Amino acid sequence: MRAAIFRNGEIVVDTLPEPQPGPGQVKVKTLACGICGSDLHARKHAHRMVEMARLVGRKPMDLSRDVVFGHEFACEIVEHGPGTERKFKPGTRVCSIPALLTPEGPQGIGYSNDNIGAYAEAMLLSEALLLEVPNGLSPQHAALTEPLAVGVHAVAKANIRGDEVPLVIGCGPVGLAVIAALRMKGLRPIVAADYSPARRMLAEKMGADIVLDPAVSQPYAAWAEHAAMSADEKAARPPFQAHLPALKPALIFECVGVPGLLQQVFEGAPRDARIVVVGVCMETDKSEPMLGIMKELNVQFVLGYTPDEFGASLRWLAEGKVDAASLVTGRVGIEGVAKAFDDLANPERHTKIIVEPWR
Amino acid sequence: MRAAIFRNGEIVVDTLPEPQPGPGQVKVKTLACGICGSDLHARKHAHRMVEMARLVGRKPMDLSRDVVFGHEFACEIVEHGPGTERKFKPGTRVCSIPALLTPEGPQGIGYSNDNIGAYAEAMLLSEALLLEVPNGLSPQHAALTEPLAVGVHAVAKANIRGDEVPLVIGCGPVGLAVIAALRMKGLRPIVAADYSPARRMLAEKMGADIVLDPAVSQPYAAWAEHAAMSADEKAARPPFQAHLPALKPALIFECVGVPGLLQQVFEGAPRDARIVVVGVCMETDKSEPMLGIMKELNVQFVLGYTPDEFGASLRWLAEGKVDAASLVTGRVGIEGVAKAFDDLANPERHTKIIVEPWR
Repeated sequence: MRAAIFRNGEIVVDTLPEPQPGPGQVKVKTLACGICGSDLHARKHAHRMVEMARLVGRKPMDLSRDVVFGHEFACEIVEHGPGTERKFKPGTRVCSIPALLTPEGPQGIGYSNDNIGAYAEAMLLSEALLLEVPNGLSPQHAALTEPLAVGVHAVAKANIRGDEVPLVIGCGPVGLAVIAALRMKGLRPIVAADYSPARRMLAEKMGADIVLDPAVSQPYAAWAEHAAMSADEKAARPPFQAHLPALKPALIFECVGVPGLLQQVFEGAPRDARIVVVGVCMETDKSEPMLGIMKELNVQFVLGYTPDEFGASLRWLAEGKVDAASLVTGRVGIEGVAKAFDDLANPERHTKIIVEPWR
Repeated sequence: MRAAIFRNGEIVVDTLPEPQPGPGQVKVKTLACGICGSDLHARKHAHRMVEMARLVGRKPMDLSRDVVFGHEFACEIVEHGPGTERKFKPGTRVCSIPALLTPEGPQGIGYSNDNIGAYAEAMLLSEALLLEVPNGLSPQHAALTEPLAVGVHAVAKANIRGDEVPLVIGCGPVGLAVIAALRMKGLRPIVAADYSPARRMLAEKMGADIVLDPAVSQPYAAWAEHAAMSADEKAARPPFQAHLPALKPALIFECVGVPGLLQQVFEGAPRDARIVVVGVCMETDKSEPMLGIMKELNVQFVLGYTPDEFGASLRWLAEGKVDAASLVTGRVGIEGVAKAFDDLANPERHTKIIVEPWR
């Protein structure tokens, strides 16, 4: 079968042996797979990713061997392996969290030498993790389940009480998923910021109420305009806080993930802000802890999602609660993956490119 | 009156005019004032402190003018200013949060050119903030209210659910206050780590259950030994977490405050750990956000305390719930302040030195 392979730091097209489903596994035809920002990161900073995996005790990729990326997928069942329940018939369209169940626990799909990802014509999944794609949702939109789940998880980890005003910094796929998840949670107004006009337009489509260009208006000042306490909230404050600005609690989602960004958030954030770090910064970062201390900031780093959050995301997409169509800005076959990686650098042209290996 | 003054980067003894109480203020005789780690920091990194105050919009010290440090004090009322209620008679022993109420909100005492701190024979306090020292508690122990409140606040900001196992990194005055506050909260076992034998002994006195020397045993491994889940907790985990180490939630208090320490905590912390940063690091710090992300860490920076937490700390000291006597390792007059600053560098000799300006 054909696959777009990460080999020697580049994405190349080559053939690989067809995978054979083992116990509890199914072989699936890959219908659609989104290209994730983490894939772009991994191509550029693969050694860094290996180093980090080692630091946290995960099995790192062996970069001298092939890796097939692709962890945002929708597939069709082709063949059941031994010891499967065959709950879904061949031809059924399914999604799964990008993991294979093994006796040693789940193993990731997509950044592994052993478990090939979805930039290939076929792959293996664990039957126990399969979710049927409901409502005739198209594979390219079902493939958005994974990135949406990232936003749903980030919002879940924020432990929302209901009185916060959220500010989303960066409206790439991660920021847009956070906005969609916040909208489903009903926390409003949602303030969002991005330098790209195309991304700002998408932020509005996903449900942001106030969308601003940091080149024109300072995000935290704009946020504060929309975060004024009500008279009741003002009156309910403890006396020792009466001299502080009467602002609702800030909930800031950092969805960019480059060095220096968190320090910018520390500088802009109001006192007592909660910051959820959803952007994946793979480089060493510098910050002023004194700013965090003097403002008593809280920083919640997040990654991934739970199986429940993943399932809910698929359901919400199938129910049309998220405008999936606006997010998909391109579709390519296996030959188009390398160029798509480059094209994604331009936020005006692209948000999510879907790989369709059967093309 | 005499005072130990921060002037041109040094602590010098000189005389200052007696302060005159303004509206709502009382003049007090300073009976006892603890030397705080922040005072040592401020002497060394005063320009940095000014820079940070500016960044968060507070009025910074003017370093070309005199500053009198001292914000952990117990005093005796001498004279009431105009417009006071005279609730407490002259001679009454009182504590107060180190702040003066002004029409513009509270202003700090101790790092201010205008509001002199307690390394002076007399000072001004706001009548509305005075708390009477109860139970005949000695001034030197009442002066521990402020540092204890720092620990009480840190523990309050940790939002303890009851199933966490705490790990206290660093057993200086801040770490010891955290241990005392954890003990009052009843969260056990308390694991604590410090390189100093004297500090480890004090950690035990304050209520730590397991006290270790990081030079001998790795704190996070030692913590894990005492954080094993019960069979019930293990059974209650969601299936997708079943492969993870069966450890209770980690609650790590960083009580050191030097660059690189938070990164060390990031490296050692187990997945999903909550980290409370109580140590005050005034320098730029570096860290690997990927570690935070891959472990989904939460970092809560904290500073100070609420008036309620301060009042509760005074009460607990007066009720003998904290072994205050062990914490005081030295008492000096105004002439001894500069040397005491140097002596505090040796954790074997000193924990808390109390300045008694009347000596």
